[in-house]
Amino acid sequence: MNQQYSSALLERAVDEFAKLPGIGRKTAMRLVLHLLRVDVGKIDAFTDAVSTLCHEVRYCSVCHNISDDDVCQICSNPARDASTICVVENVQDVMALEQTQQYRGLYHVLGGVISPMDGVGPGQLEIESLVQRVDEGGVDEVIFALSSTMEGDATNFYLFRKLMKYPDLNLTVLARGMSINDELQYTDEVTLGRSLINRVPFTCK
Amino acid sequence: MNQQYSSALLERAVDEFAKLPGIGRKTAMRLVLHLLRVDVGKIDAFTDAVSTLCHEVRYCSVCHNISDDDVCQICSNPARDASTICVVENVQDVMALEQTQQYRGLYHVLGGVISPMDGVGPGQLEIESLVQRVDEGGVDEVIFALSSTMEGDATNFYLFRKLMKYPDLNLTVLARGMSINDELQYTDEVTLGRSLINRVPFTCK
Repeated sequence: MNQQYSSALLERAVDEFAKLPGIGRKTAMRLVLHLLRVDVGKIDAFTDAVSTLCHEVRYCSVCHNISDDDVCQICSNPARDASTICVVENVQDVMALEQTQQYRGLYHVLGGVISPMDGVGPGQLEIESLVQRVDEGGVDEVIFALSSTMEGDATNFYLFRKLMKYPDLNLTVLARGMSINDELQYTDEVTLGRSLINRVPFTCK
Repeated sequence: MNQQYSSALLERAVDEFAKLPGIGRKTAMRLVLHLLRVDVGKIDAFTDAVSTLCHEVRYCSVCHNISDDDVCQICSNPARDASTICVVENVQDVMALEQTQQYRGLYHVLGGVISPMDGVGPGQLEIESLVQRVDEGGVDEVIFALSSTMEGDATNFYLFRKLMKYPDLNLTVLARGMSINDELQYTDEVTLGRSLINRVPFTCK
């Protein structure tokens, strides 16, 4: 046992917290000492929530989002527009789009982007299942909502090649341009150039 | 269920993490998604470590430090000098002093400092048990190692009043002065003044 810790149990708990990303040993110690001060019932709620999630987590068989059931709440919601599929990298992206409250279609979570540098090829992503969803019919539009990085663009291109064989399918991509509240002089030249090329008719909405 | 989360289990786990101090919902989400990627066995190790600590935690009956047994490893170590007691506020302070590797005596964890503003009086701290340890004999020196704040100083004074009745007991306090590597011009005037008054003979050690 490390000389520094007076209790092996304490050290073990700190070790476990320190394994989490972005949590160092000092923060881990602070969190553990906080847990020692709270009710034992609340500790049980904490460990149970983590344990239950990790043991019972499922992924939606349609869109591959995290789900409690075989099909997630978004895919099984009849109020949502099943003719539009928005392709995203991961679960957080679904949440970010849901928070905008601007989208009523369905999603498709790829599980990443094509990145040969990180050893991620098309085969490791949920691309075949996307093509299959389109192939089954009823889809009018696929929105590419990936990161605007080189890897995201490469994945967009790969998806485009896979889906261009469906003549009635609209393939769209999220608009790139100045962020809301950005000052023009501080916008990088690539973004600004793209904003200029993709300018849209002015409306007073 | 919040519209944002596709899984109630996920939301519950994020909620629990977000209750920890200094962890917001975004960080909580990142931690939970990290846990989802690791082995289920590692999750069990994590929840078990937290749960075991909080259910089985004990405090040393001598020094009140966190301990696995009735008496902690420091108090039960025969190699340590039982005639010196270092009075600290909390468990982290014991660790900080242990890390200096300059102290071979025992500790006494008060559990805080006297702070009328926060409703902490001498009765809530382990002061009586300290007096009792001294009263049982065998103690030559008590070192006050509390924070150098107003509350720490008030607690030092209170302890001094309680312990001054033992004529053979040395009462000492940690030296206050410039930190190592501090530049003189940026040291605050109170600290600098104290450093000057408490100057010590120069040695080439």
